[in-house]
Amino acid sequence: MTRILGIDPGLATTGFGVIDVEGQALRYVASGTVHTREADIGDLPGRIKLIFEGVREVMATYQPTCASIEIVFVNVNPQSTLLLGQARGAALAALVTGGLAVTEYTALQMKKAVVGSGHARKEQVQEMVMRLLQLPGRPNQDASDALGLAITHAHAGGSFAAIEQATTLQRRQHAHYRGGRIF
Amino acid sequence: MTRILGIDPGLATTGFGVIDVEGQALRYVASGTVHTREADIGDLPGRIKLIFEGVREVMATYQPTCASIEIVFVNVNPQSTLLLGQARGAALAALVTGGLAVTEYTALQMKKAVVGSGHARKEQVQEMVMRLLQLPGRPNQDASDALGLAITHAHAGGSFAAIEQATTLQRRQHAHYRGGRIF
Repeated sequence: MTRILGIDPGLATTGFGVIDVEGQALRYVASGTVHTREADIGDLPGRIKLIFEGVREVMATYQPTCASIEIVFVNVNPQSTLLLGQARGAALAALVTGGLAVTEYTALQMKKAVVGSGHARKEQVQEMVMRLLQLPGRPNQDASDALGLAITHAHAGGSFAAIEQATTLQRRQHAHYRGGRIF
Repeated sequence: MTRILGIDPGLATTGFGVIDVEGQALRYVASGTVHTREADIGDLPGRIKLIFEGVREVMATYQPTCASIEIVFVNVNPQSTLLLGQARGAALAALVTGGLAVTEYTALQMKKAVVGSGHARKEQVQEMVMRLLQLPGRPNQDASDALGLAITHAHAGGSFAAIEQATTLQRRQHAHYRGGRIF
């Protein structure tokens, strides 16, 4: 069995999602967010500490065997790019120095793996994550993206090669549900 | 006695410098660089790991009581900004989660504190760091900037209020040495 931790990094909110993969089965374990808004906005070291320790707490609690993290891109605002970079650096450091092998995926790769289209909207990712993991409700966007990254890694790892076949119908239904466009 | 660790963050090279401050005296303890060039250039998680663990190794070896780190700025190349941000996030995470209080300074603040002018060149910083710490030779630029950040913190902390007076002459000599301009 593989337990995957997905991380969607951000300075204010870092999403996490944990799933188990066994054969062709995906099982939801946990998801949530690490918030740093509570800290003084000007206290970057303090916020970086919260991100690192939050990710480490998730690792200690759920004991994942590997991790996947979103590749972030430059923002229109260079200062935001710099802050996002530092947040991601802290999250990444928590994962790799905690002994986890980390694989990186773009949002496009994640959306393709989860929804079937790299241009899917956030709500479509939430919907498909809910269906694939048989959740009773939609996880929030940050947690949903993180779970999507974990699902992407399960998919890419080949340990879950049948995901394509198993989810085609759900994708179509989902596409239909979202407005009839087949992805 | 205060032992200050200065960090000049970078993805390829992170400089570090350790000094002791006792009353008005500054004493050089150690300096050097953490390199990540050896790692596969495409392996960002691996390089982030080297930065975090390198900073932690310096902390374990020299047991500083506080730290100062350079505030980085956006680069002309947004992708470089993102990479620098991640490197700084990893270094900062290593410091704050290792229990050190961290103060941030801009390069301008550091140059002002060390050389007396925010527009000083790298070589002037090297020269003044060498003089202030009575080193037998110029430390390399990354280590010199890191030592400069540690000196800046000593200065700012008020535990070394006499630095102004003690170094005015040296600054003038230095300015003269660099071309006669008084800073």
